[in-house]
Amino acid sequence: MSDLKNDRFLKALLKEPVDRTPVWMMRQAGRYLPEYRATRAKAGDFMSLCMNPELACEVTIQPLDRYPLDAAILFSDILTIPDAMGLGLYFETGEGPKFKKEVRTSEDVDRINVINTESDLTYVLDAVKTIRKELNGRVPLIGFSGSPWTLATYMVEGGSSKDFRHTKAMMYNTPEIMHELLSKLADSVVDYLNAQILAGAQAVQVFDTWGGALSHHCYPEFSLKYMKKIVDGLIKEQEGRKVPCILFTKGSGQWLEIMADTGCDALGLDWTTHIGEAKARVGEKVALQGNMDPSVLYASPEKIKAEVARILADFGSGTGHVFNLGHGIHQFVDPAHAGAFIDAIVELSPQYHN
Amino acid sequence: MSDLKNDRFLKALLKEPVDRTPVWMMRQAGRYLPEYRATRAKAGDFMSLCMNPELACEVTIQPLDRYPLDAAILFSDILTIPDAMGLGLYFETGEGPKFKKEVRTSEDVDRINVINTESDLTYVLDAVKTIRKELNGRVPLIGFSGSPWTLATYMVEGGSSKDFRHTKAMMYNTPEIMHELLSKLADSVVDYLNAQILAGAQAVQVFDTWGGALSHHCYPEFSLKYMKKIVDGLIKEQEGRKVPCILFTKGSGQWLEIMADTGCDALGLDWTTHIGEAKARVGEKVALQGNMDPSVLYASPEKIKAEVARILADFGSGTGHVFNLGHGIHQFVDPAHAGAFIDAIVELSPQYHN
Repeated sequence: MSDLKNDRFLKALLKEPVDRTPVWMMRQAGRYLPEYRATRAKAGDFMSLCMNPELACEVTIQPLDRYPLDAAILFSDILTIPDAMGLGLYFETGEGPKFKKEVRTSEDVDRINVINTESDLTYVLDAVKTIRKELNGRVPLIGFSGSPWTLATYMVEGGSSKDFRHTKAMMYNTPEIMHELLSKLADSVVDYLNAQILAGAQAVQVFDTWGGALSHHCYPEFSLKYMKKIVDGLIKEQEGRKVPCILFTKGSGQWLEIMADTGCDALGLDWTTHIGEAKARVGEKVALQGNMDPSVLYASPEKIKAEVARILADFGSGTGHVFNLGHGIHQFVDPAHAGAFIDAIVELSPQYHN
Repeated sequence: MSDLKNDRFLKALLKEPVDRTPVWMMRQAGRYLPEYRATRAKAGDFMSLCMNPELACEVTIQPLDRYPLDAAILFSDILTIPDAMGLGLYFETGEGPKFKKEVRTSEDVDRINVINTESDLTYVLDAVKTIRKELNGRVPLIGFSGSPWTLATYMVEGGSSKDFRHTKAMMYNTPEIMHELLSKLADSVVDYLNAQILAGAQAVQVFDTWGGALSHHCYPEFSLKYMKKIVDGLIKEQEGRKVPCILFTKGSGQWLEIMADTGCDALGLDWTTHIGEAKARVGEKVALQGNMDPSVLYASPEKIKAEVARILADFGSGTGHVFNLGHGIHQFVDPAHAGAFIDAIVELSPQYHN
């Protein structure tokens, strides 16, 4: 593997000194970019794009050719694992993801096997290898997975949900069945992320999109516990470098302390938390990633720059901050506004680093 | 007006001693009840039901005839104010509320007038009077309104939204236009709630459904400030009793202290906050209302009872707690499960009161 030319993202995650605050954007390879839409049209549907390593590599690299980003993230979907478990993932136009089979009963859970990434999700590992080769050390590559709880919600509901009716009924009525499902998912995620690391991922992020829908009482038991299991099971070092792990639960502002106690390297923050207060609460233990409201990108470049300045000032001096949005970039954002966001970080952040 | 036979809801909101924890459910008059669906079918569409004082009264009373609830809440919609402002509210089957006109420009905001509830929303006041008469002192009647910020999101987007694209663009790009809109809405809400109080509402709740979509920085400026303006403008006493005011921002667990500083009487909590910790943070200043995850009602009666027991124990001894769900009851809940929820509070809460 080639030497890494830009490692400020990895350094900041490990709280090592950097020259400026690194930045990437969740969903940076996405529909807001015309070049992404062109590649996607070439691929056909969304899953065909995910399953084609060359095209997945192409869209992964696209935002790096536009912006001075400090990390690339594997282009894939969070639902590859349940798909590999045989649930039959598909997308209907204008609607969210759906599964042909739902997981509702003890028998349904028994039938599920922990995945073997090498054989079950070869296309993901091929994409990782292709992207690493194409990046050629330009920036590090982030691997990722959905969290066990988040994956479980889609598997039990058979798709997206507003109230998580069936998932929460299973959780409250038969917690032992839910725990069995989450255990199999956690083991699968460990296998999946470690395979990504062995294939070339230099950091990993766990997306817990729906952990914030849990009560304060259920979050530690049904989401965080399994993310800790993942943190514990991950390969810690590869190619002579540490492989940092980022946990991101949307809506977790009240739970940062217990998240930091998992032993992960960094926490992703959404925009409801003051990043300076978060730093005071957990900054000794973990780095922080975030946390601009992605809807700020609908505002003018001047307003975007002002918001970046505010967040940098809120975090203050020193390392341990990776700039990002508090959630994925929206599809209707003008790419020039994403550029203004990144340029502002490049221009304004060096003063906070010695 | 007749004497109030059950005032434990009003007493708990004012932190006066009660014999047991009072309970009501957000959206207690709703689609989970077969008798509601029958009345709604009789009325035709949803807005026809809201606009018919006799039928609105009928559905308001229905849950009281099933369960030993301690309060009734006016049956209406949060979007009556923008409708009265001339935006043309309508509902399409299977979709959320929509407006025929959107509010996007300075001219759009200029054209909007503060409402006069007496003349513009007579049907709401007629419903309040009809319900009060029909209740005949059985339990107190809660009036309500959407918060200025929440109303603004629907008005600017022209309906529901996921990312509040146009609303946040207006807020970040032209905050002065957004503030003008929010000021007119706050003045309208004050007029609206005071008219409800004069017509017979004995407590009021402000529903800030979308305040939690704001950043920690924007929430005080664009939502909370206008809720404080409402608290300041409300009639404080009527019929020789205090009229308590409850503020409910979904997703506000990180902001309870600044909410309590508005001078309101109580805060509504969603289920992501530990009610005992909330009590320690703000319990000297305000009462707390909440906070069971409404999806617990999909679980068995035994599990529902266990969850009620846990929340009661978390709050601990003393007054200042109104039991409720952390959000509206879901339409697919079995009415018997709602009954198990309320029965558990009636059975288990007296031990926490002397």
